[in-house]
Amino acid sequence: MDGSSERVASPDTRDVIMEATFRAISKHGYKDLRMRDIGEEMELTRQVIHYHFDGKYDLLSSFLEYILDQYEGSVEVERDADPRVELGARIDQCLFGPEFDDFTHWDRMKVYHELFSYAQHDEQHRATFNEHYGRIRGSIIDVVEEGIEQGVFRDVDAERMGQLITDLIHAARGRRISLGHDDAPEETRKAIDEFILDSLYATEDAVPLD
Amino acid sequence: MDGSSERVASPDTRDVIMEATFRAISKHGYKDLRMRDIGEEMELTRQVIHYHFDGKYDLLSSFLEYILDQYEGSVEVERDADPRVELGARIDQCLFGPEFDDFTHWDRMKVYHELFSYAQHDEQHRATFNEHYGRIRGSIIDVVEEGIEQGVFRDVDAERMGQLITDLIHAARGRRISLGHDDAPEETRKAIDEFILDSLYATEDAVPLD
Repeated sequence: MDGSSERVASPDTRDVIMEATFRAISKHGYKDLRMRDIGEEMELTRQVIHYHFDGKYDLLSSFLEYILDQYEGSVEVERDADPRVELGARIDQCLFGPEFDDFTHWDRMKVYHELFSYAQHDEQHRATFNEHYGRIRGSIIDVVEEGIEQGVFRDVDAERMGQLITDLIHAARGRRISLGHDDAPEETRKAIDEFILDSLYATEDAVPLD
Repeated sequence: MDGSSERVASPDTRDVIMEATFRAISKHGYKDLRMRDIGEEMELTRQVIHYHFDGKYDLLSSFLEYILDQYEGSVEVERDADPRVELGARIDQCLFGPEFDDFTHWDRMKVYHELFSYAQHDEQHRATFNEHYGRIRGSIIDVVEEGIEQGVFRDVDAERMGQLITDLIHAARGRRISLGHDDAPEETRKAIDEFILDSLYATEDAVPLD
């Protein structure tokens, strides 16, 4: 959950600061964020921020790693013997997510998508996002490849298929957040089933999954 | 091209201000934009901005309408007797876009996507974006419906299909802009052809289109 814990001795304090940063961004937005706003979201003195981070940029870079790690941990699913079951579960986790302790999946995702749109302005954050995005896409490609090997999926370009599904998940979340389309994840799930997975399955008479 | 021209007498001056705003946002980003930055991008005195707009919010709201109108104008395509040709042309226009006079499609799209991500924080801008998004999606749904009526497309849920394609276009552009994946539009076009349009065509032995 804390990709930077090796850099300092006190991961607990860092987590407190990270969660305070999350609340501050949720409240004020990324663009208007001040160190003071983060300080106001914690019981610790603001000085601990300066002790743990070399300024705002260092803090925000660590925060980006923190929420990406958190997201990746939250969408992890069990391997399943049937690639159709595993692929469906991965899509569901990314689209609907789990509930976190204090905040919902969507509170987290709002911040995630805000940082995503900023990545265009920051080479380092863009690189961090690219690694993360590659891992998420990779986990979908893996299960598509597995399904092709087992013969339950058609012999498609697994990378292209994995990218397509990853893009659809991202677009549905972005549309829910930016445009307020609350049904976007459910609708996208149906569209993936109807227009993509149906034709991915190797046999037309495959038994529908529960 | 100017959705607000009815409000004032001088659309030309408004266009000059809008293009100056576009350049200022391209240079400084939306989050750090000051009226002064816009003034520095025009030869006209900054006072004309205050004459034409009731402050920064009014200007930015007009700017949003301006770039959405511009985008919609730029992706307009001729109706075609063959819905397969028209659908392909619409997808291409949205994915690759035309060249504008001074800036490329992608310079415009960067600003577009930045404003899209901000729409979550602003009810009025969100409503404007929703209307725009509905029109783009609607133009794709129309041609899918036309294809179903003509019998060249399978009898699918046209709205769901149109939404899926619109989402994929949006995701590909966002990924190119935020993550620097320059090949995202081309790759997405191939994925749409291979995984979606192929199965949308009513007959399996349909002649491939040039």
